[in-house]
Amino acid sequence: MIKRIAPDVEIIDITHGIPPQHVLQGALVLANTLPYMPVGVHVAIVDPGVGGDRKPVALAGSDGRLYVGPDNGVLVVAADSLGGVERAVEIANTSYMLDSISRTFHGRDIFSPASAHLASGVALEELGPALDPGALVRLELPAPEVGSARIRATALYVDRFGNIQLNLTSHELERVGIVPGAKVEIEIRFERYYAVAARTFAEVRAGDIVVYEDAYGNVALAINSGDAAGMFSARVGQEVLLSPA
Amino acid sequence: MIKRIAPDVEIIDITHGIPPQHVLQGALVLANTLPYMPVGVHVAIVDPGVGGDRKPVALAGSDGRLYVGPDNGVLVVAADSLGGVERAVEIANTSYMLDSISRTFHGRDIFSPASAHLASGVALEELGPALDPGALVRLELPAPEVGSARIRATALYVDRFGNIQLNLTSHELERVGIVPGAKVEIEIRFERYYAVAARTFAEVRAGDIVVYEDAYGNVALAINSGDAAGMFSARVGQEVLLSPA
Amino acid sequence: MIKRIAPDVEIIDITHGIPPQHVLQGALVLANTLPYMPVGVHVAIVDPGVGGDRKPVALAGSDGRLYVGPDNGVLVVAADSLGGVERAVEIANTSYMLDSISRTFHGRDIFSPASAHLASGVALEELGPALDPGALVRLELPAPEVGSARIRATALYVDRFGNIQLNLTSHELERVGIVPGAKVEIEIRFERYYAVAARTFAEVRAGDIVVYEDAYGNVALAINSGDAAGMFSARVGQEVLLSPA
Repeated sequence: MIKRIAPDVEIIDITHGIPPQHVLQGALVLANTLPYMPVGVHVAIVDPGVGGDRKPVALAGSDGRLYVGPDNGVLVVAADSLGGVERAVEIANTSYMLDSISRTFHGRDIFSPASAHLASGVALEELGPALDPGALVRLELPAPEVGSARIRATALYVDRFGNIQLNLTSHELERVGIVPGAKVEIEIRFERYYAVAARTFAEVRAGDIVVYEDAYGNVALAINSGDAAGMFSARVGQEVLLSPA
Repeated sequence: MIKRIAPDVEIIDITHGIPPQHVLQGALVLANTLPYMPVGVHVAIVDPGVGGDRKPVALAGSDGRLYVGPDNGVLVVAADSLGGVERAVEIANTSYMLDSISRTFHGRDIFSPASAHLASGVALEELGPALDPGALVRLELPAPEVGSARIRATALYVDRFGNIQLNLTSHELERVGIVPGAKVEIEIRFERYYAVAARTFAEVRAGDIVVYEDAYGNVALAINSGDAAGMFSARVGQEVLLSPA
Repeated sequence: MIKRIAPDVEIIDITHGIPPQHVLQGALVLANTLPYMPVGVHVAIVDPGVGGDRKPVALAGSDGRLYVGPDNGVLVVAADSLGGVERAVEIANTSYMLDSISRTFHGRDIFSPASAHLASGVALEELGPALDPGALVRLELPAPEVGSARIRATALYVDRFGNIQLNLTSHELERVGIVPGAKVEIEIRFERYYAVAARTFAEVRAGDIVVYEDAYGNVALAINSGDAAGMFSARVGQEVLLSPA
């Protein structure tokens, strides 16, 4: 669809691997990835509530990036972390949609055409009526509970290696005394495990459970040369307790 | 291979996800997708019967599209639905093939080079001797049996969400009285289930079985926020009975 | 990252499907594929021993190809088979890296930027100090044992169809009398099976076990219309015995 409307536009596929309904995971992957991507028109669609009440929206970020997707929070985590949403519109102008709109494939019929027209130079405001950026749907990112000697964290997403990203930074780990080299007790699904805090996997042995800062600045849990999510039967939303061992 | 022969050609990968031997599924995905794609040279290869008796062919459709693939039916469903095959040739001219042809990877050695040469402007007739378009292999698409109060349908393919596309249009559903909002009894593998006919998933509850018209105009079976194919252990070719409940 | 540094560069994704830690498989896929690819800057990253002692390297092959990746052997099988490594450098110049280098994602922070700069015309020697091409890490490719009537081979990799590539050429098969049409006894994991040596799958029946020369000139093991690796529970490194039956 994009290439029919804007044949010279270049398309970069960040991922088609977000599981259905995982809006938060889609939002986080977008927020993690965009700082490394060229400025462009960024389309993100996860569970758009097709036929339901999620408005299709287009946003302009303060850094020049444009965003296209459903108003379900998938776009705003990234936009907010890159300076905020400057302008927002509802995509409503049918001249920038496919002639015949299906009820279940708005990615093809609404979002892709809108992004292609934006990439071709159509002004955001042409797509539809302005929305208040403050009134866009925003996801509740779970906050960690950081006690004096224990942290209650949540799995935000699991990558294809089985590494588990937590809603935690290394600053929060340090507050309970977990620094690189420290031993860590973790509790997942009522089971306890012993892990090592490390800067890199090279500092631990194969099979060790590792607590480390991942490439996006988040604390993550992994098994060196293994599959942590598989071993812990952990999915997004899983609670993980961490304390110095 | 394509980029070596035609460096300026743009390649759009519709899918590499058709399971081996699923020629019908490949043919249907191509037919569903092409109406939304730019006119171009369309290569489709599923189970080319490598080393066997399937001729490699190139076709010209009446709408200007060109097709390259094995003569096993994978191309013709799309071409016929877009106005028909105007000209056909057997790909036989070795000057448009890789120098050394392997016995098991004709996608690399025959089909990709042929498509690259066509995209670079080589005339269809240069590739080899003309074939009668009417003599190309055509797939038998299973027809539904529509009775007075019951339909016997067949699963044509299953998408990555587990939604099951049937060989059925909403007109046929209406003939047995199934319209949006109606309750539907379905029978799969000798088990009965109750479903709802709906325009969109937003009209039903999570977990409901839904009978709906999909984005390609076919009737499909889904579970809202679930995996219908997994739940029904249904694959392509599965018989599905539908009647008003 | 590549597109930010070199917006006009064209990226061809050979695969993102090499399983973690399968350096040999990555090296073989690269060596099998490159002869059919345009000359370019070839980036290959499998298990880069991030944070460990694997140097990031860039190589120039004698045919004009450039290679970027970790010094763990993943690049050199391809480069050696295409005429050898002419020059090698350690990637050490931080002006050609991302400003802030993470400890666990050198693909993004070191290898992609280096490849983008090379593709934009930066000289190999700009990236860092020269290395002796002869001192690069080289993988031990397992050699087959060819007896008078029996061959002991090893599975090098398994493709997505379940076909098993062996470390064997058809010349070695001929030395024990296995030629197309011959019956073959194979032994895998202490089980014996009967296979047929064939030029193409069209020469055997569905369900037959086939020993054939694959599209890269290696002997492979397959089940016609089936999944050999699944049936034999065979992975990379699996020993396979072959003898005339």
